[in-house]
Amino acid sequence: MDITNSIPDFKMIVRPEFVKKAEELKPELSTVRVNPVRLVQIVPHGEDFTAEPAEDAAALSRKSFGRGDSVCLDFGGHQVGYVSFRLSSTGSPQDAPAYIRIKLGEIPYEMGRNFAGYRGNISRSWLQEEYLHIDVLPAVVRLPRRYAFRYLELYVIDTSPKYKLTISDVVCESVTSADPGRVLPLKTADPELALIDRISCKTMESCMQLVFEDGPKRDRRLWMGDLRLQALTNYHTFRNYDLVKRCLYLFAGLTQNEGRVGACLFLEPKLQVDDTALFDFSLMFVSCLYDYYEATGDKETLRELFPTAERQIELSMAELDEGGVVRDKDTWWCFLDWGKGLNKQAGAQAILIYALKQARQMAEWLEDEEKAARYSRQAELATEGAMSRLWDAETGFFVSGKKGQFSWASQVWFVLANVFDREKNQQLLKRLIREDPPVKMATPYMYHYFAEALMENGLIDIALETIRSYWGGMAREGADTFYEVYDPADRFASPYGDRLINSFCHAWSGTPAYFIRKYLV
Amino acid sequence: MDITNSIPDFKMIVRPEFVKKAEELKPELSTVRVNPVRLVQIVPHGEDFTAEPAEDAAALSRKSFGRGDSVCLDFGGHQVGYVSFRLSSTGSPQDAPAYIRIKLGEIPYEMGRNFAGYRGNISRSWLQEEYLHIDVLPAVVRLPRRYAFRYLELYVIDTSPKYKLTISDVVCESVTSADPGRVLPLKTADPELALIDRISCKTMESCMQLVFEDGPKRDRRLWMGDLRLQALTNYHTFRNYDLVKRCLYLFAGLTQNEGRVGACLFLEPKLQVDDTALFDFSLMFVSCLYDYYEATGDKETLRELFPTAERQIELSMAELDEGGVVRDKDTWWCFLDWGKGLNKQAGAQAILIYALKQARQMAEWLEDEEKAARYSRQAELATEGAMSRLWDAETGFFVSGKKGQFSWASQVWFVLANVFDREKNQQLLKRLIREDPPVKMATPYMYHYFAEALMENGLIDIALETIRSYWGGMAREGADTFYEVYDPADRFASPYGDRLINSFCHAWSGTPAYFIRKYLV
Repeated sequence: MDITNSIPDFKMIVRPEFVKKAEELKPELSTVRVNPVRLVQIVPHGEDFTAEPAEDAAALSRKSFGRGDSVCLDFGGHQVGYVSFRLSSTGSPQDAPAYIRIKLGEIPYEMGRNFAGYRGNISRSWLQEEYLHIDVLPAVVRLPRRYAFRYLELYVIDTSPKYKLTISDVVCESVTSADPGRVLPLKTADPELALIDRISCKTMESCMQLVFEDGPKRDRRLWMGDLRLQALTNYHTFRNYDLVKRCLYLFAGLTQNEGRVGACLFLEPKLQVDDTALFDFSLMFVSCLYDYYEATGDKETLRELFPTAERQIELSMAELDEGGVVRDKDTWWCFLDWGKGLNKQAGAQAILIYALKQARQMAEWLEDEEKAARYSRQAELATEGAMSRLWDAETGFFVSGKKGQFSWASQVWFVLANVFDREKNQQLLKRLIREDPPVKMATPYMYHYFAEALMENGLIDIALETIRSYWGGMAREGADTFYEVYDPADRFASPYGDRLINSFCHAWSGTPAYFIRKYLV
Repeated sequence: MDITNSIPDFKMIVRPEFVKKAEELKPELSTVRVNPVRLVQIVPHGEDFTAEPAEDAAALSRKSFGRGDSVCLDFGGHQVGYVSFRLSSTGSPQDAPAYIRIKLGEIPYEMGRNFAGYRGNISRSWLQEEYLHIDVLPAVVRLPRRYAFRYLELYVIDTSPKYKLTISDVVCESVTSADPGRVLPLKTADPELALIDRISCKTMESCMQLVFEDGPKRDRRLWMGDLRLQALTNYHTFRNYDLVKRCLYLFAGLTQNEGRVGACLFLEPKLQVDDTALFDFSLMFVSCLYDYYEATGDKETLRELFPTAERQIELSMAELDEGGVVRDKDTWWCFLDWGKGLNKQAGAQAILIYALKQARQMAEWLEDEEKAARYSRQAELATEGAMSRLWDAETGFFVSGKKGQFSWASQVWFVLANVFDREKNQQLLKRLIREDPPVKMATPYMYHYFAEALMENGLIDIALETIRSYWGGMAREGADTFYEVYDPADRFASPYGDRLINSFCHAWSGTPAYFIRKYLV
C-alpha cells in the first residue's frame, strides 16, 4: 500500500480573514551563531556508527585537505539553521576548481552511511548532502538551504596536485521561534527525568519555526496530528500560545474540498493545504482547538474556529455505515501509527468518539446546549456501533477491520475515548500490556497516546515506566532530540524502508516534557 | 613523470605600471541569449557516443520528469556562458525537495559517459556537473558558474511519488570579447576550407574572454604558449589587437622569480602568475611580442616590453652547457607537446634559436645594433651547439636527450629555427614525413608548428593536406570547435588519462583560420 493519498479533483478553499489572522501572528525567528565544538571520528559498530571525539575544534585550523580527505565536525547538539564556512587554498595558486561534498546528519548513523546506498521508498532528496564546485578561493561558502544536524562532514572530492584546502570560520546560524527563557526550570531531583525533559524541550525548540514543523530535517511542514501534540507540550514549556493560534487559523483558513482540514500545510511557495486527507488528522483539529481553549481561555478564537471543528465532525460522521461504524478502506485513509499492517478502523472509530466528546464540551463552553446534546447523541451512537461491532467480549479487546485485527492502537484509543469508566479502562490497559498483541506501536506518536491513556486513568507508575523505557531508551542511546521512529527492539526500523531517511528530531516525539510537567513534577 | 612543476621559493614580481596598462585594456564581454534548438538522444557506438536529434525544442514544454527521468538539450553549437531555467512542479503540492543533476558537455562523449567512472590524473573538478536541491518550486534556477558546452542534460535524481518536474525557459547567456563583425568574409569556393575556417573562428570566439583563455572548459586561463597562437590567428580574424596587448602587459607585469615570464596567469582571486615555469613558454613571450609588432607596428609597446623579452633570452641562455646546448632535465621543464615520452632538449634548443633570431630582429626594429649583433652571435652559438651535438649527419635528423631520441617535434622546431636554408628545410621535412619517427605529434599545438614549418618553406600543398586531414578530421567528426588533443588514430587519446577531461574547444587548435587566411586564400 502506498503511504500517500491524493484527493481526487482536489481544490483548496481559502478563508482570507483566517489566513490574514494567521499571518499577523507569524513569529520572528531568533538566530544564534553556533560553532563546532570538536572534530569527531565516525566509527562503525556492526551496522551502526558512533561519533568519537577526536580533536578539539581549534585543530581544524592546522589541517589541510586534498583529494579524498575529509573531516567531521560536531556542533555539540542539534542545530536547525544555515551553515557557512571559509575555504582557502594552500600551496600553489588554485589551478582547478575545488570540488567538495558537504554532508549533514542529526545522528552518527547518517554520517557513517554512504547516501549512495539509500534504499528507502520516499524521496532521497531529503538526505542532507550537497556537492559544490568553488572556482575561486578563498571564498566564503554559504550553503543556501536550511539544515537540521549536529554533525557536518566536509569531504574533498578533488582539488589538484598543486594545492590543498583549508577550512575556517565554520558557523551555523541556528534559528527558532521558541524562546527558551519562557520554559520554567524543572523541579526534579531525578536526573533521568531531567534529561528526558531537556531532550524533549530541545526537540520542541528545533521544530518551532514559522509554524510548528513536524521535523526540521523532514518534512519541514505543519502536520495536524503533530501540531496537536506540539501544542500540548508547548503549553507546559515554551508557552507560545500565538504560534498554536496561528497554526489553527492556517488549518481553518486553508481547507480542502468540502471544508476538510487537510493532513498538512505548506508555507512555500504560497500558503496551501496539501491534497492529503487523513481521517484522524482532520479530527485532531477538534482536539487541538479544545486543548487550546483549555490552555488559554481564548473564547474569541474558540468561537471563530468552532465551525471548522464542527465541519470535521460532520464529514467524519458521514463515514459511518448504518451500524454506526466507520467504513474501513484499503487505502492510506487514516494515520494512527506507522505500525506494520495496522488496521485503522477501530482506532478511527475511537478517535471519532474522542473528538465528539470534545466537541460536546466546546459547545457547552460556547453555551450552545442544542449542539452539545447533538454531539452527545452522536458519541453515543458511535459508541454503540463500536460496542456492538468492534468489541470482542470474549477476549476483552477491540478488534479492527474485516479480519478483526487485535492491535495496541485500537485499545489505546478506545481507552482515550472513555467508552468505559476508569476502572474498566485500567483493566483494559493492563490486559493489553499482559497480552501484548502482535500489531505493536511503532512511533513516539502512538506511544504518546498510550502514556496519555495510562496517565489519564491513574496508572502513573506504568506511564512513568513507559517514559523511562521508551523515551529514556533514546536518551541512553545519546539522542540530542527525540526520533520520529523508535523501536527498542530494532534500531534500524523505518516506515520508509531505510533508517537514513528517518527524522531524528521529530515534533510528535517531544511530548515527555508535557507528561513530566503536567503529571509528574 | 608529473605533468606539473612548481618553482621553489616562488615569488611574484609585480610591475604595477604594466598591470595598470593591462587592466585599462580589459575588454567588455558581449552577451547573447541562446536557447536550446532541439532535444537529442545520446546514442552509444562502441565506446563513443553521438547525439541524435530526437524532438524539437518546443517538445520540452509537453514533458514532465520524475525520479530517474532525464532530457538532453542541444544548444546547436558551442556556448560559453551562464545557464538558467525555470523548474516547476506538476501534480500534488511539492512535498519533498527536487533533487536534480545538471551535466554539460562540449561533445556527445561527455554526455554519454558516467562521470563517476572518470579515471584521469588531473582534477575531476573540471567535469561540468552540478547536483542541486530545489526546496521550493516553481523556481528560476541560475547556475552560478560559467560553462563551456553544447549539450545540457537534466537528470532527475528524485522528486516524490506525488509530483513531477516541468522545465522551461532554458537559456544560456553566452559571453565573449570577440566581435564577429570584425572577421572578414572568407573568399573561397572550397567548402572544406570554409568549414575548417568557421570552426577555427568559433574556437577563437569561445576562448576570447577577459583574456585569451586556453580553453573555456579547462583550464580557463591565460597560457603563454596558447596566447602566442591565439594572437597570430586573431590578427587574421577578430583583429582585437588590444586583447593581445593586454595579455602581453599582464605577462610582463606579473613575472616569477628572476623576472621569468610564467607559463600561465590567473585572473582570480587576483591577477597573479602561476608558479609553473616552462622553458619554451617563457620564450614564447619573445615570439608573441615579435608577432604583435609585426601585426601592429606599435613601437611604444615593443619598446616597453622588449626588456621583458630580453630577460627571457638571458634566462634561457643561462641554461646552456659549455657546449652551447640546453641542459636536459628529468622534470616537466619544457612543454613542446603532449607526445608520450617526448624528450624536450632538441625542441627547446631550436626554440631558443628561433627566439634569438626574433630578438635580433626586434633589436633592429628598435635600432639597437649592438643588441642585434649580440643576439646574432648567441643564435650562432646555439646553432653550433645544436649542429655539433644534436644533429645526426648519418640519419639526417636532429636527436634529443641522452638517448638521442628521434621525434617529429625536434625536426619541426629546427626547421622553424631556420638553421638550414629553405632547400635543406624542405628536404628535412620530407625526410621526416617519409621516416615518420615513432615519437609523434600529439596535439594541434604541435601540428600548428608543423604546418607553419611547411608553409614557411613553400611546401604549401603538404601543409594544406595536413590541415585537411588533421583539422579536417575533427570537422568530419562533427566538431563545433577544435579539440585540445586530436589523434586521428585514437579518438580516446588524452594526456590526462581520460578523454572526458580533455578540452574540446581549445585555443591552440584554432589556428587553421590563420593558415587559410594568411597563406591559402
